[in-house]
Amino acid sequence: MSTVAADPLPSWRPGAVKEALLAFVAAVSSEGSAQFVPESERVAVFDNDGTLWPEQPLPFQAAFAFAELQGAVQRQPELASDPMVQAALAGDIGALLAGDHFEGLLRVIAVSHAGMTTEAFAAAVEAWLGSARHPQLQRPYDALTYAPMQEVLALLRAHHFRSFIVSGGGADFMRVWVERVYGIPPERVVGSTGRTHFALRDGAPVLVKSLDTLFVNDGAGKPAGIHQCIGRRPLMAFGNSDGDLAMLQYTTIQNPRPSFGLIVHHTDGEREFAYDAETRSTGRLVEALRQSPERGWHVVDMARDWTTVFA
Amino acid sequence: MSTVAADPLPSWRPGAVKEALLAFVAAVSSEGSAQFVPESERVAVFDNDGTLWPEQPLPFQAAFAFAELQGAVQRQPELASDPMVQAALAGDIGALLAGDHFEGLLRVIAVSHAGMTTEAFAAAVEAWLGSARHPQLQRPYDALTYAPMQEVLALLRAHHFRSFIVSGGGADFMRVWVERVYGIPPERVVGSTGRTHFALRDGAPVLVKSLDTLFVNDGAGKPAGIHQCIGRRPLMAFGNSDGDLAMLQYTTIQNPRPSFGLIVHHTDGEREFAYDAETRSTGRLVEALRQSPERGWHVVDMARDWTTVFA
Repeated sequence: MSTVAADPLPSWRPGAVKEALLAFVAAVSSEGSAQFVPESERVAVFDNDGTLWPEQPLPFQAAFAFAELQGAVQRQPELASDPMVQAALAGDIGALLAGDHFEGLLRVIAVSHAGMTTEAFAAAVEAWLGSARHPQLQRPYDALTYAPMQEVLALLRAHHFRSFIVSGGGADFMRVWVERVYGIPPERVVGSTGRTHFALRDGAPVLVKSLDTLFVNDGAGKPAGIHQCIGRRPLMAFGNSDGDLAMLQYTTIQNPRPSFGLIVHHTDGEREFAYDAETRSTGRLVEALRQSPERGWHVVDMARDWTTVFA
Repeated sequence: MSTVAADPLPSWRPGAVKEALLAFVAAVSSEGSAQFVPESERVAVFDNDGTLWPEQPLPFQAAFAFAELQGAVQRQPELASDPMVQAALAGDIGALLAGDHFEGLLRVIAVSHAGMTTEAFAAAVEAWLGSARHPQLQRPYDALTYAPMQEVLALLRAHHFRSFIVSGGGADFMRVWVERVYGIPPERVVGSTGRTHFALRDGAPVLVKSLDTLFVNDGAGKPAGIHQCIGRRPLMAFGNSDGDLAMLQYTTIQNPRPSFGLIVHHTDGEREFAYDAETRSTGRLVEALRQSPERGWHVVDMARDWTTVFA
């Protein structure tokens, strides 16, 4: 505990963002403070791709889906005629990222595991995480979480916050490893979901994944997802792209409780990736950055603010 | 703690169900026990209507929706032409309860608050709970929870379980009062949900309820809802109708962890209501009761097993 008291955020360089983070957490969790908030209401929400781990050159779940796609097409040959499946198999990433919510990518992700049971899907995710390596960073994907953000998760845990992942990624994909990697239990994952169907198969209960999208937890969907799964407004929101804009607004604008918004700005092409407006990936950041001064959102300059990037 | 140790379930008469409940909770939470389960995996799921509080003569949320319906029709006059709205306004409950998932009732519930913000909806629920009385039992609806089940919730809390409500009722309706009434936080409610739309209204973020059903958390939907929102199989499931059958199966059949299923059988026409096969309400109980011996589910005979019904 003495180390934590000394500096709970050792991977953060001294500066305005680090100071604001520490001051906010102290203010809402100190009894007698004017900003004190009871434990039951201390909810924080974190985007995942680009906020807790990278999303370049593509969201990691897309890499998983591409790896699974051949097997899926073997299981269900009719899928080979799907234009988005063809684009994925041909490596045409541009086609997959067109559209407001990356519909092609979502389609490929759905297709890659339709017909599987949720248990078989979880086993496939674990197997992939155990063997796959990030093409540029050359590490297992789950060894690429951001050290400074892991420190924020630990800081909030120590102050009796409940942190939730609120990601455009698939809830089923994240639930497999979030407890091990972030210390966040599976019920604190809000993500995009597909419909599953319950059945007794040879007497055993299974849930079978379908092609039907149930909920896309991105953009304006994020506040709706938070409402659906958490049922109260968060105090703190952490994001990195315009897909997090509505979540940041929902958390910080006219919140009757104290609130805090933070944007991770990917400025570090040397240690990680540098991108914002021009990216074709899920991490496009223009409008949320533009609004940050008027909204009071803190913007992390990764190159400047973080001494270490990866945990 | 000495009182709890003496009898944590004082409203339960001595008997097989009470013994089984106490033995199971002790076995999974005692370190060194062959059936020990780590705290993080101690998840219990409870149906609400008919399991934690009554559902006769109609689910309480239906009474709320009927009370709101006049106002909704004034807000949106075109709703008056909806056949199910007409049935509700005419008191034709039979029409509302037809169909596999009480589609008419769900429609009336959706219609009663479409176009409202989630905050206005929550305020309406609280106002209604503060003034409405159950027609036969003559008490506020939220003063009608079952004392024996409140004791089970407290027992599980004392043994570091996380209890979730998994109900066919609306998540938004339940979230307003579950923390106050059951000590269960809003994020541990899995219920039927409608789509909400995020907007900035006069600069303030709001979520507006729509007519679109997103997910019906009943029957085979319950295991899917549990998977979506909790992400792991429960150890314990509590229900009272065939709408809980799939949830009981998902919890107890071939679960690699120890598991426990319980059905509340409404046998007490004097203190509460007596019904099972013949009811037209949501509480129809035939198939789950039939399977209970082979599945090892415990069946509560309300008249015989409970010394007190209401908390």
